[in-house]
Amino acid sequence: MQLLEDRIRKDGIVKEGNVLKVDSFLNHQMDIHLYNEMGKEFKRLFADRPINKILTIEASGIGIACIAAQYFDAPVVFAKKSQSINLDGDVYSTMITSFTHKREYQVIVSKKYLSPDDHVLIIDDFLANGCALQGLIEIVQEAGATIEGIGIAVEKGFQEGGKLIRGMGMNLHSLAIVDSMDAATGEITFRQE
Amino acid sequence: MQLLEDRIRKDGIVKEGNVLKVDSFLNHQMDIHLYNEMGKEFKRLFADRPINKILTIEASGIGIACIAAQYFDAPVVFAKKSQSINLDGDVYSTMITSFTHKREYQVIVSKKYLSPDDHVLIIDDFLANGCALQGLIEIVQEAGATIEGIGIAVEKGFQEGGKLIRGMGMNLHSLAIVDSMDAATGEITFRQE
Repeated sequence: MQLLEDRIRKDGIVKEGNVLKVDSFLNHQMDIHLYNEMGKEFKRLFADRPINKILTIEASGIGIACIAAQYFDAPVVFAKKSQSINLDGDVYSTMITSFTHKREYQVIVSKKYLSPDDHVLIIDDFLANGCALQGLIEIVQEAGATIEGIGIAVEKGFQEGGKLIRGMGMNLHSLAIVDSMDAATGEITFRQE
Repeated sequence: MQLLEDRIRKDGIVKEGNVLKVDSFLNHQMDIHLYNEMGKEFKRLFADRPINKILTIEASGIGIACIAAQYFDAPVVFAKKSQSINLDGDVYSTMITSFTHKREYQVIVSKKYLSPDDHVLIIDDFLANGCALQGLIEIVQEAGATIEGIGIAVEKGFQEGGKLIRGMGMNLHSLAIVDSMDAATGEITFRQE
């Protein structure tokens, strides 16, 4: 998606250790105009799928998922990290390893909000090693629901996640795929599709 | 706001210990139609204020803030819980006590995304004892920005938060204020304003 690639080139910051900071418009401060264009693009990409629910994971996936949901006329469910006393015990759960935060955490979705009748679009802001996404896939499969597609804002194409998830036969679309980036020059190369 | 009160009466669940579960439409599964009506109502309530930024806190405030931001034509910044290695050290921070999760956590906002030029609307899903909100207020004040208003979806009017925040002279509007609720009968009484 040209608009997102241009924005990443303009405002993204490449740091040592394969860190791409996009927190000025995507995952700390959020540009709602950009989000709307991303939502429209997700709708275009998944227009042929009978999506009735969008699943994401807290925290930075929620904004993109909510704005996109307007184009699908579907509710959003967000997977929660760690058990809250306000949630019933009746949950789907899985463990996810976060490399960003260097820890493992439990991810849960109430059984009330995912069922075998659901046709789910999974949306998240980032795809790198794919751990979070695999957790969401496991939860949807545990619910017996159908995964109609996976929409990602920014994929780090040089990490394993995209290959892994596509290898599972998933209908995965990333709006921008970074194939390489250079912390010294700030240069970013996007995959042409 | 009648629509939200009706929805809380219909789908909210009152539990022992002053717990009001609204996770079927507000803070686990999210009804985007309802969110849009809430966003319009926030715009109506704060129409006279020169708001250029919306501040919320992860996780369940993000969806409401993003949908509402469309009516204010403003970006959203969400305060993050606990330090992430992907954030610069240059942050505003404060400590917040969560009664829900029975722990203290650090809340941070990058200094890049709040400045003395900003006119901020704070949005969150719940107001009970007011701890999270006080943390957000502290962060805005630390930045030297102006708090134009505070928009809350559901206020527990029988807890101290609302009185405390209004006592600070804040322009606080809650779309639904629960004055009492009964776990035995499920009855909920809303404040008439």
